[in-house]
Amino acid sequence: MNEPAVRSPKMAVTRKDVARYAGVSTAVVSYVVNGGPRNVSPATEARVRDAIAVLDYRPNAAARALKLGSSRLLGLILPDNSNPFFTELAHAVEQEAEALGYAVLLTNSDGSQAREQAHVRNLAARQVDGVFLASVQFDPDVAALEVADIPVVLLATNKAAPGFASVGTDLREGARAAVKHLIGHGHTRIALAMGNTAAGGVDDRELGWLDALTDAGLGEGPIVRSLFTRAGGYAAGQRLLASAERPTAVFVSSDMQAIGILRALHEAGLTLPEDMAIVSFDGSTDAEYSWPALSTVKQPVRAMAQAAVSALVGQDKGTPSRHGVIASELVLRRSCGCP
Amino acid sequence: MNEPAVRSPKMAVTRKDVARYAGVSTAVVSYVVNGGPRNVSPATEARVRDAIAVLDYRPNAAARALKLGSSRLLGLILPDNSNPFFTELAHAVEQEAEALGYAVLLTNSDGSQAREQAHVRNLAARQVDGVFLASVQFDPDVAALEVADIPVVLLATNKAAPGFASVGTDLREGARAAVKHLIGHGHTRIALAMGNTAAGGVDDRELGWLDALTDAGLGEGPIVRSLFTRAGGYAAGQRLLASAERPTAVFVSSDMQAIGILRALHEAGLTLPEDMAIVSFDGSTDAEYSWPALSTVKQPVRAMAQAAVSALVGQDKGTPSRHGVIASELVLRRSCGCP
Repeated sequence: MNEPAVRSPKMAVTRKDVARYAGVSTAVVSYVVNGGPRNVSPATEARVRDAIAVLDYRPNAAARALKLGSSRLLGLILPDNSNPFFTELAHAVEQEAEALGYAVLLTNSDGSQAREQAHVRNLAARQVDGVFLASVQFDPDVAALEVADIPVVLLATNKAAPGFASVGTDLREGARAAVKHLIGHGHTRIALAMGNTAAGGVDDRELGWLDALTDAGLGEGPIVRSLFTRAGGYAAGQRLLASAERPTAVFVSSDMQAIGILRALHEAGLTLPEDMAIVSFDGSTDAEYSWPALSTVKQPVRAMAQAAVSALVGQDKGTPSRHGVIASELVLRRSCGCP
Repeated sequence: MNEPAVRSPKMAVTRKDVARYAGVSTAVVSYVVNGGPRNVSPATEARVRDAIAVLDYRPNAAARALKLGSSRLLGLILPDNSNPFFTELAHAVEQEAEALGYAVLLTNSDGSQAREQAHVRNLAARQVDGVFLASVQFDPDVAALEVADIPVVLLATNKAAPGFASVGTDLREGARAAVKHLIGHGHTRIALAMGNTAAGGVDDRELGWLDALTDAGLGEGPIVRSLFTRAGGYAAGQRLLASAERPTAVFVSSDMQAIGILRALHEAGLTLPEDMAIVSFDGSTDAEYSWPALSTVKQPVRAMAQAAVSALVGQDKGTPSRHGVIASELVLRRSCGCP
């Protein structure tokens, strides 16, 4: 309590002051403050900590935070953080990045391209080591990425973008397999409940639905389009019920929409899956807990995360223009009519 | 086109070069590049931009990103980004922060205190303007926050923490109202399905359940504890079904758990809500789309977000130790037995 009194209160306490007070080198003070890189004996550490307390030593905030062990950081830009598919993908990316010593900062574009671009700039300005971008756009604006001057990997995309590594699911084949499965249950009038893909492209899930119908020589069932949300699916379900020739099965482009459709069908008093069979897409946890549990095309979330992390900061770093397309898996539960 | 040719291609163009070419001070170059802090006349700005283009001046990546319009940033640390309650809270915080000109970086502690503390340090090191912390702990470790030396507001907490502003829901009163409602439907044996609150405290939802039973002169129904997840709820539902004296109603501490319980009850062939009435907690979108739709205590997500943003960077900034407790709202759907 005496020592600090001799100092002017305005004069900043330095690492040197702490070293002198504790009778150690400034390097030892650093080791204690930073928790390394070298070990310090417990007795010495106690002396240094005592000196820090007595002198009220405070390194500056950023330096202090860094010294406390700030990680290398990656940014992850999601189009919609309220969609479980994306939160599960984010979770897998966090785990894969953590295994390589990176922490992940998440941002949510919430459907807005302007917000997406602002996030790219913000992350670049905070000097993250790289960015994963799951774009709100069918065809991401790569010019906006190039100015950021940090490595970017496009995630959950079905378009290759020259100059950028990208990773996506084989949506078309996944959808084809799902519809083929419904056909195997004997359905011949199979609807499509499609999410509203951004302007500028036909979603591959729609093409996969068509492929399966064509392969089987079946005509197209009705198509209902809605937002990729539960509320969107609910409205789509009501439109399906009102179809002139009601389908007996529906392929749905996301679990979220399928959960909304289930509500509409339950409310209309249908017995499921007997009155309407469903296969959805994504394979998020929600699909397992709906009633009936949803048969769904599971997107390869873990494999996508691994490929994206590898492309950004791992083994495959520095291979731009490489577009990885990963297969999905049909998970069968009760909504399709399986026992 | 002549001017650049006289420069060695390896020699970096500096701000000074731009200033000399444009016939302005280096400060003016900065104002143009940074968009301030002082205004520059349109004619001068055009001259500077021309010089930048001719000389191909490129400030470093971070400076460039900043000049492109990097926002002020806040960090938001969530305990579990897979819980819709937290993603909905994050969404509300993003919107409230955006209204004040801030973007939000999200991090996910995924139930780990070590990860939570690393996120605090990482965000501090990237010099965010403040951090919202929804802790994995019942009683957050504020010492770890103090070293970060950035403003922190505790979010979704029920404990006041001296020195920090904090915002939470009135869990106890919300739970009491939910259980009172079940009692109003004639139930006398009401179970509690409780999430596993971190060591060191009794969750206020449990106290609220007890309050309502005590007020009505009813004995305690069985208590089943599980993770705050769908899978946890599913296991809890199976234990409820196996109870020696099966309850006729259950109050559940989260929508996630309630969705898992619904699955267990459906699988056991129960008719809902007749065979088992349910009121859950959180009021996330999921609760609206389960079958039957869940009556639930809606947490005041929007009001919490407003209060937290106000405390961190808005009107109520600089009022540490202030603990805001916000009332919840009982939303009645079908799972409680309401028509």
